[in-house]
Amino acid sequence: MNAPDDAHLVETKVDSQQVFVGTLLRVRRDNIRLPDGNPATREYVEHPGAALIVPVLADGRFVLERQFRYPVGRVMLEFPAGKIDAGEAPLATAQRELIEEAGYAAATWHSLGTIHPQVGHSNEGIALFVATGLTHVGAQPDEGEFLDIVLMTLQELLAAVDAGAVTDGKTLAALLLWQRRKGEIA
Amino acid sequence: MNAPDDAHLVETKVDSQQVFVGTLLRVRRDNIRLPDGNPATREYVEHPGAALIVPVLADGRFVLERQFRYPVGRVMLEFPAGKIDAGEAPLATAQRELIEEAGYAAATWHSLGTIHPQVGHSNEGIALFVATGLTHVGAQPDEGEFLDIVLMTLQELLAAVDAGAVTDGKTLAALLLWQRRKGEIA
Repeated sequence: MNAPDDAHLVETKVDSQQVFVGTLLRVRRDNIRLPDGNPATREYVEHPGAALIVPVLADGRFVLERQFRYPVGRVMLEFPAGKIDAGEAPLATAQRELIEEAGYAAATWHSLGTIHPQVGHSNEGIALFVATGLTHVGAQPDEGEFLDIVLMTLQELLAAVDAGAVTDGKTLAALLLWQRRKGEIA
Repeated sequence: MNAPDDAHLVETKVDSQQVFVGTLLRVRRDNIRLPDGNPATREYVEHPGAALIVPVLADGRFVLERQFRYPVGRVMLEFPAGKIDAGEAPLATAQRELIEEAGYAAATWHSLGTIHPQVGHSNEGIALFVATGLTHVGAQPDEGEFLDIVLMTLQELLAAVDAGAVTDGKTLAALLLWQRRKGEIA
């Protein structure tokens, strides 16, 4: 949401280099110019982007996943999501991940916009979609992917939020955006 | 939220090494064992954690920031937040950042719990707090930090959310958690 009068905030790139290529992560370090003209550096994870799905069954229940997330060392309750493959449109990622991870195909898709999970040090954007008209087709998990599917009513999911049992940022953000838009979608 | 019967989901560490130390970011790569006993690797950003503040003025308006976020190349509307310094308690970080960035001291603090912004490849946790009883004391921005302070009613903030003008994941998650808890706090 850059406005015409944001010159006092905007940083500009001088040059950019890739400083780390790992098995999963890539990091860039850019030399930049601050709004006052002084130099600085910015370091950030280069991410291909992701798609998240809010899958809603005909009876109103959500399809969620319980998945162990190694970096935080715990099982997380999350909406299905996955990384965008090279050249893939975000909606195609959402459709693929909903089948692979959760085992559902959807007749209808609505966009909930895009969120940025870590603006301080990652360029990742997550495209959010609501999937309805669901048909169970059976999950096709990637090798080495282990997860449980959980069906929850909105009331049950909000009770889990209130109990502090939902700490995944993208899932909480998507739930807020779904609540704001559900009147248009349902 | 690991449950007693989550052994079919849990991954265990075999060994761990630091594979990148940058000017801002550090990355670890761990060899792990999957739930089925097979080996795999996990790579993730090592993060000290952060604190976010939902500052609410006596008239109900929120104190927010507009800040250019270089990795995503845009000015973001966000609740004030900052990284935890070594040895610092999350509440102390919140109190320090609210003064430094936004220029407010608060009489009363409530915890809204912790969120995890990027569970796929970061161990970051963000401790969320609501700050009330605010006194304007003047901001003390770090050198090279440029931001605008914006005061918004809940209605104005939700209108911005509905317009797609708030895409910061932690801000959307904190807004949902604040909405769920405001009855107890206000």
